Amino acid sequence: MRQSKLFTKTRREAPKDEVSKNAQLLIRAGYVHKEMAGVYDLLPLGLRTFNKVVGIIREEMNKIGGTELHLSALQDSETWKKTDRWDDEKVDSWFKTSLKTGTELGLGFTHEEPITALMRDHISSYKDLPAYPYQFQTKFRNETRAKSGLMRTREFVMKDLYSFSKNEAEHQKFYDACADAYERVFERVGLGDKTYKTFASGGSFSKYSHEFQTISAAGEDTIYVSRDRKIAVNKEVYNDEVLADLGLSKSDLAEETSIEVGNIFGLGTRFSEALGLAYKDDSGSDIPVFMGSYGIGPARLMATVAELLSDDKGLVWPEEVAPFRVHLVSLANGNDDVVTEADELYRELTEAGVEVLYDDRDARAGEKFADSDLLGLPLRLVVSEKTLAAGKFECVERASGTTQHKSLSELIGMLTTR
Amino acid sequence: MRQSKLFTKTRREAPKDEVSKNAQLLIRAGYVHKEMAGVYDLLPLGLRTFNKVVGIIREEMNKIGGTELHLSALQDSETWKKTDRWDDEKVDSWFKTSLKTGTELGLGFTHEEPITALMRDHISSYKDLPAYPYQFQTKFRNETRAKSGLMRTREFVMKDLYSFSKNEAEHQKFYDACADAYERVFERVGLGDKTYKTFASGGSFSKYSHEFQTISAAGEDTIYVSRDRKIAVNKEVYNDEVLADLGLSKSDLAEETSIEVGNIFGLGTRFSEALGLAYKDDSGSDIPVFMGSYGIGPARLMATVAELLSDDKGLVWPEEVAPFRVHLVSLANGNDDVVTEADELYRELTEAGVEVLYDDRDARAGEKFADSDLLGLPLRLVVSEKTLAAGKFECVERASGTTQHKSLSELIGMLTTR
Repeated sequence: MRQSKLFTKTRREAPKDEVSKNAQLLIRAGYVHKEMAGVYDLLPLGLRTFNKVVGIIREEMNKIGGTELHLSALQDSETWKKTDRWDDEKVDSWFKTSLKTGTELGLGFTHEEPITALMRDHISSYKDLPAYPYQFQTKFRNETRAKSGLMRTREFVMKDLYSFSKNEAEHQKFYDACADAYERVFERVGLGDKTYKTFASGGSFSKYSHEFQTISAAGEDTIYVSRDRKIAVNKEVYNDEVLADLGLSKSDLAEETSIEVGNIFGLGTRFSEALGLAYKDDSGSDIPVFMGSYGIGPARLMATVAELLSDDKGLVWPEEVAPFRVHLVSLANGNDDVVTEADELYRELTEAGVEVLYDDRDARAGEKFADSDLLGLPLRLVVSEKTLAAGKFECVERASGTTQHKSLSELIGMLTTR
Repeated sequence: MRQSKLFTKTRREAPKDEVSKNAQLLIRAGYVHKEMAGVYDLLPLGLRTFNKVVGIIREEMNKIGGTELHLSALQDSETWKKTDRWDDEKVDSWFKTSLKTGTELGLGFTHEEPITALMRDHISSYKDLPAYPYQFQTKFRNETRAKSGLMRTREFVMKDLYSFSKNEAEHQKFYDACADAYERVFERVGLGDKTYKTFASGGSFSKYSHEFQTISAAGEDTIYVSRDRKIAVNKEVYNDEVLADLGLSKSDLAEETSIEVGNIFGLGTRFSEALGLAYKDDSGSDIPVFMGSYGIGPARLMATVAELLSDDKGLVWPEEVAPFRVHLVSLANGNDDVVTEADELYRELTEAGVEVLYDDRDARAGEKFADSDLLGLPLRLVVSEKTLAAGKFECVERASGTTQHKSLSELIGMLTTR
């Protein structure tokens, strides 16, 4: 994409009311726009990054047997009354609205109820199980205080997968597979080494649930980390009984502040019993379906990457989540040969399938480099009178600052073979 | 995808409260689920079809210079008060909700106001224009009566593009390019010959707006069609003055009922003036930006295709919007050779990049064929003892019913070259 066609502008200063680093950087770089407290728009570069994160999660969910669908945001109260989650006294994060007839509707803050009700149309026999529907869908949560930029917002897309299994053993097998898939997601977005599978409180049907917590001072949670075993314990279950159960001792654990980037939860038959989702086993008896739920917020994940991997010059995207892989910066200064060479490089790379943002703007080198650092694409290629004379392009890695000089064929080779 | 892994089931009968053909078929085939009146979920096959339609629209919008972004559903009243579209007396389709502080928020039924406000951060000079942001985003409309299945719903994704131009001439050029892009969209989804660019009322800034109307008894609109000129006039502007202006006479026009599948609208400076979006021209004067808006609802388009191209056996998808191109139906009847052959064909086609739904279920031929007709994929391939003996697969076109027999290499050739 030619940067002259990208309408977003970078800015020197973040809005004064924005205190979190992730939102400050993403706003300054023109990735997001703040609509109001806790509500953000995704601008073109932000949407591309977000879609990369979504693509990674989708791939990993498909690999473990997930099937994508899409449920509505508007929710009928009847379904939620059956599980006792309609009343604002019970669930304090509802946004509610109403039809012109006065009928009250909710805006889904999660989707256990509607997906369970829906599956009654499709599950009746043990042959219909297991099933793993998931979606990328907008949740609405009436947070008392939106905070931490894009970490805790009132409107956000969530990847929520729900598992429907014949029994706890079948459930547990998928639960473990999903935990592994989550580890691959966090690895691929660049947070693998800082993210811990964390034991948290379960519920009536399972001893523990698991969160995936990324160590960061910007987080809201407190966890106790065993670096040796690459696991952690959430403060809420940090007690002698749990530690003994997990074979951990306090001396092995380091207290850390962290961001919850994902969670997985065994639901048992809480929802299937309340909503009448059962199957007939081979003896013809009705058995309630055993469920689990599995969430990741792609925008929170994007914000966590922005928060953790950035430096004082701006964003630093890992290759798999960058909106474009290459930032091609032309320093023409009125030299038509430089323009021709940069245009040609843009064409060659694009044809080779490399995603390129091409800074073809008529601007000073200092401004272009500052913008380039702020935008944070993995590899910057510079075309100037100097590189033209040398016959090689300057290639600068955003993360390391390493500079190399490469010919066109060397570049194409480097960017297309892996 | 193996059909045994697709959890959705077809059903013989549509729900009794569902009177529209598009929703009846889409529900029976397991493409959508009705959450409540005017609110539908997209099941896996429905989501795939929907995404195909979205992909076509996205391609055509990108070709004319569109840049994708994503705005929030939650809306701040302040922005809308400035254009006098907050009051329920003025706009009767708002769903409203509120924060815990009592602050009232709206759920966007369209996005002229927030996109105009947002663009103030990015447009200040004539060099920043034109700009063509668009999105696929969920709109909420508090319809008094939801009707016509997926045609008029209370929650739906809309592709809305907004054009920001220096002046009316620049605007008109894009407006015409977008009209052409819309024609290509309707052509590609299979509605080209039934869809007419229709003159409708403009507003304070343009004489006419244009709708794209698809002739169908299931529609809500009345238009007057000139088949010769491939244009139409909406009943609301069907008068002598307009006909004279367009060089049409009543005798050339046929009255038809139709579905509005898209619209494009010149907005002039109504929004930019109210919200202070202006640019400096080369003399340094502030000029309000000239705007337009361009909408298509992908789910309505999918429903229109379902409504118009189906037959008494079920859905009939054109190739570009079908959830899968091929429906591979194996009639094994306990014959392992048939299973092996069908598995192998599935593998070969999938590896060749062909999208295949593979009915590997243990079910009777009659049930499989009835389901296959209902699902409506463009090409059915049958593997049975009979085809095994003949050494060729049976290939049936869903739309025409034409049957051919082809070897594997002939099939791969047919499905991969174009």
